[in-house]
Amino acid sequence: MDYKDYDFGLVGLGVMGRNFILNVADNNFKAFGYDLDEEKVEALKTEGGDLSKVSASTDIKTFVQALSSPRKIMLLVPAGKIVDQAIESLLPYLDEDDIIIDGGNSFFTDTDRREAYLKDKGIHFFGSGVSGGAEGARKGPSIMPGGDKEAYQHVKPIFEAVSAKYKGEPCVAYLGPKSAGNYVKMVHNGIEYAMMQLTSEIYDLLKKSSGLSNGELHQVYSKWNEGRLQSFLVEITAEIFTQKDDLTDSDLVDMILDKAKQKGTGKWTSQNAMDLGIPVPTIDMAVSMREISALKDERILADNLYNRPEIPSISKEELIEKAEQSLYFAFIIAYAQGLHQLSYASKDYGYELDMATIARIWRAGCIIRAGLLADIAEAYTADKEVPNLLLSPSFVPKVQETLPAVRDMVAFAAKSGIPVPGLSSALSYFDAYTSSKLPLNLIQAQRDHFGSHTYERIDRDGIFHTEWGA
Amino acid sequence: MDYKDYDFGLVGLGVMGRNFILNVADNNFKAFGYDLDEEKVEALKTEGGDLSKVSASTDIKTFVQALSSPRKIMLLVPAGKIVDQAIESLLPYLDEDDIIIDGGNSFFTDTDRREAYLKDKGIHFFGSGVSGGAEGARKGPSIMPGGDKEAYQHVKPIFEAVSAKYKGEPCVAYLGPKSAGNYVKMVHNGIEYAMMQLTSEIYDLLKKSSGLSNGELHQVYSKWNEGRLQSFLVEITAEIFTQKDDLTDSDLVDMILDKAKQKGTGKWTSQNAMDLGIPVPTIDMAVSMREISALKDERILADNLYNRPEIPSISKEELIEKAEQSLYFAFIIAYAQGLHQLSYASKDYGYELDMATIARIWRAGCIIRAGLLADIAEAYTADKEVPNLLLSPSFVPKVQETLPAVRDMVAFAAKSGIPVPGLSSALSYFDAYTSSKLPLNLIQAQRDHFGSHTYERIDRDGIFHTEWGA
Repeated sequence: MDYKDYDFGLVGLGVMGRNFILNVADNNFKAFGYDLDEEKVEALKTEGGDLSKVSASTDIKTFVQALSSPRKIMLLVPAGKIVDQAIESLLPYLDEDDIIIDGGNSFFTDTDRREAYLKDKGIHFFGSGVSGGAEGARKGPSIMPGGDKEAYQHVKPIFEAVSAKYKGEPCVAYLGPKSAGNYVKMVHNGIEYAMMQLTSEIYDLLKKSSGLSNGELHQVYSKWNEGRLQSFLVEITAEIFTQKDDLTDSDLVDMILDKAKQKGTGKWTSQNAMDLGIPVPTIDMAVSMREISALKDERILADNLYNRPEIPSISKEELIEKAEQSLYFAFIIAYAQGLHQLSYASKDYGYELDMATIARIWRAGCIIRAGLLADIAEAYTADKEVPNLLLSPSFVPKVQETLPAVRDMVAFAAKSGIPVPGLSSALSYFDAYTSSKLPLNLIQAQRDHFGSHTYERIDRDGIFHTEWGA
Repeated sequence: MDYKDYDFGLVGLGVMGRNFILNVADNNFKAFGYDLDEEKVEALKTEGGDLSKVSASTDIKTFVQALSSPRKIMLLVPAGKIVDQAIESLLPYLDEDDIIIDGGNSFFTDTDRREAYLKDKGIHFFGSGVSGGAEGARKGPSIMPGGDKEAYQHVKPIFEAVSAKYKGEPCVAYLGPKSAGNYVKMVHNGIEYAMMQLTSEIYDLLKKSSGLSNGELHQVYSKWNEGRLQSFLVEITAEIFTQKDDLTDSDLVDMILDKAKQKGTGKWTSQNAMDLGIPVPTIDMAVSMREISALKDERILADNLYNRPEIPSISKEELIEKAEQSLYFAFIIAYAQGLHQLSYASKDYGYELDMATIARIWRAGCIIRAGLLADIAEAYTADKEVPNLLLSPSFVPKVQETLPAVRDMVAFAAKSGIPVPGLSSALSYFDAYTSSKLPLNLIQAQRDHFGSHTYERIDRDGIFHTEWGA
């Protein structure tokens, strides 16, 4: 084995890590992996084939010493304490100016803390979101690095080679200082939650109100994927409906339990948006729905207690047509909310984000990749400072056109008893965000009435208080 | 001045603190106040009249020495560092077994931290929510103490005397160990956010779709307040519509700017519900709407870009009737979500909460007091363990009856372009919570497809993974 000869080290040889290493090797960089699990190490060595290009070890010293200087070591391990443990286990063997990259879904404040901690020790550390799932890691993910810009220059050739390409452009770019990379990835995942919730509730609507079979659902989503809804999530949804179950004669989708799990990034997005004071109700609702789904026992009890309304009749054609418009509208709203949050986070946290760049590196490789992102990238290229996608001139007609169908679908679902919380939150958000006048003057009146919290006026500046009822 | 003779000390003589002290004195306990602000101290002394019953000082030593042992000192200061500062300024003058009560809206983990810190110093510390605004503090608030039960016994006679009474029963009870008091108050405020949002969006619906004048709105809310919607918030809403502006000829409500502020407790409720994994989407939505309201400049830009739909015609009578049913339904959902969160928090944090007791002490004095709370208290008395109000047999017919009107109103609002995010989130929540089968099987399929996150099945136990498309 040629020691000190490997270009790139990777800690954590789960499916993502193994695939990422093989991708690095495909691009003519020598890569070395580390994991405590002997089986994972052996699996990578076997899959990699040529040990002079891909190798791995369960010994941390062997791992670190195999890498060329400055060492470039990416962590792909679960967020939390494991990241700190991995860093501690590396530290004794590192030299000044070595580089550690956290490629996992770490919470952004952890990244800032670790950067400061390692800076004191002469080690460069930066966070970099990686999206694309197992297949993306293997064939080209979207990569979202931030933080230490100098250190990133050493890693840039590798990331640009392994990343997904959109019409030849690599889906990776330095995004901004500090934890910008992890933050952008967190919001990416929040948008992902919303889009997954939306595809699933539209599936429910189609199935319950028009009795579409899985075969028909496959056709509907496949056709949508050829149009303006083209996206990874719509594409795999179409595929999912064709998957047969190995254990029964059924379609697999019908055998899967309706309890969705979560790993926290969607929740973090919602919680942090609240800290910033930026509304992302469709992401919030996607988090809520995963929670409701987990309360299966309570749902079964509740279902037995209440009567459902009859579903009004609607033709399959009309339903499918309006569902397509609704999903397109709601996807736009999901991106709008997430990007709105990023704009404000950029100011609050000093990330100096360029929204067009973010949209561009999301166009391929990542889970939320979609045809729409090319339009979004153009909208932000035309106006870097637009605070919300809904204010971008190119999006106004796209959104306006869908509204009659969206209104019909939300009304139809409300009358049918079919929950479409994502879609209806998207419509509420739109209707509120586009209202120059909201009824929250009443809330300010209530707050001043019971708590002397004061209010502002529409006709003059200042802070006012009234002795109500006096 | 009779030193060491005052029964109760209070730090922070804002409007709440001053009123609370006067209330204590009305109930024949001698009370002493402390504030750094000379004006506030003088204001209290003047208002209190008899200095042997109510006095105050800007000197902390004078304040502490005026109190009988064990000293009972309540803090009514803004949450955060000011609480810690107040504690530090008291400490040099306190004796072992003195008692500090945090009556403000402190975040619950801060209360746990402070309790441990002061325990080491021999000082008893517990958090106690206080709700009722300025008037409640003066005439009888709802009080939510938790934590050190022994220490509470010393304060109990005072709290029971000063609290609001519901049919003679004091609206105060020891709720549970640790930060139970602050936690319950936090969720109280989350429910309050939801109810305020709901009353305001129903006002918007009535005004925009049927052109109700403020005089008519006053009548509508007044009448509602005599029925099953009887509640403090509906009552003051009715009053608000009659308030004339001092500065113009208008009704005051029309002169108030529609940007709602928040002090954080609603946000904390939502964020913590997400940590617990319990859905409170109507509270989340109320938080989002305050945020959207604050983005007034963006809303004005957006309003100019989009066309609003025509509002379908509807008779005033039908609208008012269905709005009443909708508000009743949504109030129930707001309580259901908050109490659901409390049930789970009780388990996770070991608060040993009794839900019937909580509903009972909310029946009078606090901002969310309502006729409905008597029904809720009965429902939880009948079944202490019911995880969600929607599962309580006495609530099933109440909710079921309103559903046709709720569905009509959500559909009507969607078609009208009038945002009712609170109401539609309540309906989505209901429809999802009462669905034994949700479409989140598709989300689990997607997660397993792109991330090998595995899934459960409906027909057998275990964790499964599929090589999709293989």
